[in-house]
Amino acid sequence: MLTNARSDRVKAVRALSRRSVRSRTGEFLAEGPQAVREAVAFRPDLVRDVYVTADAQARHALIVEAARAADLWVHEVSPEVLAAMCDTESPQGIAAVCRMLDVPLEQVLSDLPRDALVCVLTNVRDPGNAGTVIRGADAAGADAVIVSDASVDVYNSKVVRSTVGSLWHLPLSVGSTVPAILDALRVRGVRLLAADGAGTTLLHDADLTGAHAWVMGNEAWGLPQQVRDACDDVVRVPIHGHAESLNLAMAATICLYASAEARRTGR
Amino acid sequence: MLTNARSDRVKAVRALSRRSVRSRTGEFLAEGPQAVREAVAFRPDLVRDVYVTADAQARHALIVEAARAADLWVHEVSPEVLAAMCDTESPQGIAAVCRMLDVPLEQVLSDLPRDALVCVLTNVRDPGNAGTVIRGADAAGADAVIVSDASVDVYNSKVVRSTVGSLWHLPLSVGSTVPAILDALRVRGVRLLAADGAGTTLLHDADLTGAHAWVMGNEAWGLPQQVRDACDDVVRVPIHGHAESLNLAMAATICLYASAEARRTGR
Repeated sequence: MLTNARSDRVKAVRALSRRSVRSRTGEFLAEGPQAVREAVAFRPDLVRDVYVTADAQARHALIVEAARAADLWVHEVSPEVLAAMCDTESPQGIAAVCRMLDVPLEQVLSDLPRDALVCVLTNVRDPGNAGTVIRGADAAGADAVIVSDASVDVYNSKVVRSTVGSLWHLPLSVGSTVPAILDALRVRGVRLLAADGAGTTLLHDADLTGAHAWVMGNEAWGLPQQVRDACDDVVRVPIHGHAESLNLAMAATICLYASAEARRTGR
Repeated sequence: MLTNARSDRVKAVRALSRRSVRSRTGEFLAEGPQAVREAVAFRPDLVRDVYVTADAQARHALIVEAARAADLWVHEVSPEVLAAMCDTESPQGIAAVCRMLDVPLEQVLSDLPRDALVCVLTNVRDPGNAGTVIRGADAAGADAVIVSDASVDVYNSKVVRSTVGSLWHLPLSVGSTVPAILDALRVRGVRLLAADGAGTTLLHDADLTGAHAWVMGNEAWGLPQQVRDACDDVVRVPIHGHAESLNLAMAATICLYASAEARRTGR
């Protein structure tokens, strides 16, 4: 059992809370049972080490069994060691060092089905919003999530936590510029729908058939004019009451679910 | 100009961050330009005092003008005084002491239109979730929001902030028990739809015509069996990918928007 919270190993795990260290090592920390369970279930090939306290080992026996069955390293640690490793205040006794899972933009695109549903996040800065949109994209059955270069790091612990495991569920690409993403999608025949409160097309009038991508902007200032102009349509979610707007995660989820419903009904 | 951050007036405003003080005085603090603007625009009768820094007075001139036009007290304060009054780290120079705006359950119900859309929050504990659902209910054109007794206080600064002004936009009732709320709605002929991941009816199959209420449960454990049993139907948002669930605010917003769409199309 690892009990020395000041050991080099613990410090190395803790250092993954810094983006520069994550970039250098290509690793990040998944904190809490939901994230670890989904990482082990969906991408065991990318899990390097699982750290678990004695208590959590009993509480989350299925996760630990699945990790051992996948031949992963499971290390028992003291609660102090786990706390020292994690960014989260209550990591619930379990965390895993994982290799990054994003793939190049071209690979995401070449694997898309014909009626692809894609979610593009541009300049999204809030970790909770980014993670919640990834979760919503997963729930709506999106085929890929693409996060532009000027956005929050998806391996930030708050983003990982907000995805509640969805980070491991669908193809993800990060780091390309917005023009590169839009061009690549267009070349593949994926229609580009900008989601923006300034849109002239109401969601229920938008054409959601065939392959399309929802392009979401920054939580405060939306999408710049040149991005809206580069899209095939600019769509807004109708506001029925007196609310000024919806937040990014809500708007994105409503748009993605409208696409899911269009897929289901074939309309 | 108020400059003494340790004055009794400042302390009295600051004390509104405590629920017990809010209950005793019937007042709460709206922090930031969005909340103050909507309070002044929609319910000036409930605004007691507006506090604004010199900087914010220039930046948010329209809000200050509207407050003066409504014969409200506008007090210039130093940035230190405003910071001492507020719970928020960056209140952006403006805040207002407001009277509580909830009304008795019976009043909310007697004012409902025939095809009412109602949102009921039961045992919701997270302030951000509660506020975001109120904002979503407003955007979807809901006619009322009812928050049960065992839920977070809607006058908590984090709830107020997350509503982004929607708190002042639609009738709100708080403090009744869940059985009392459900009984009162049923007597009024409002159909009760429990939103729950354990529901057997998929959202797109649910009957969303006529007056109905969405009953939302706690963010972690959902709705207890007896509440689900007390509803006319238990509805779940379909999960198309591998996500385990949607968070409360997302699920609520999708359900409320499905109702808004049913209203629009008459289906």
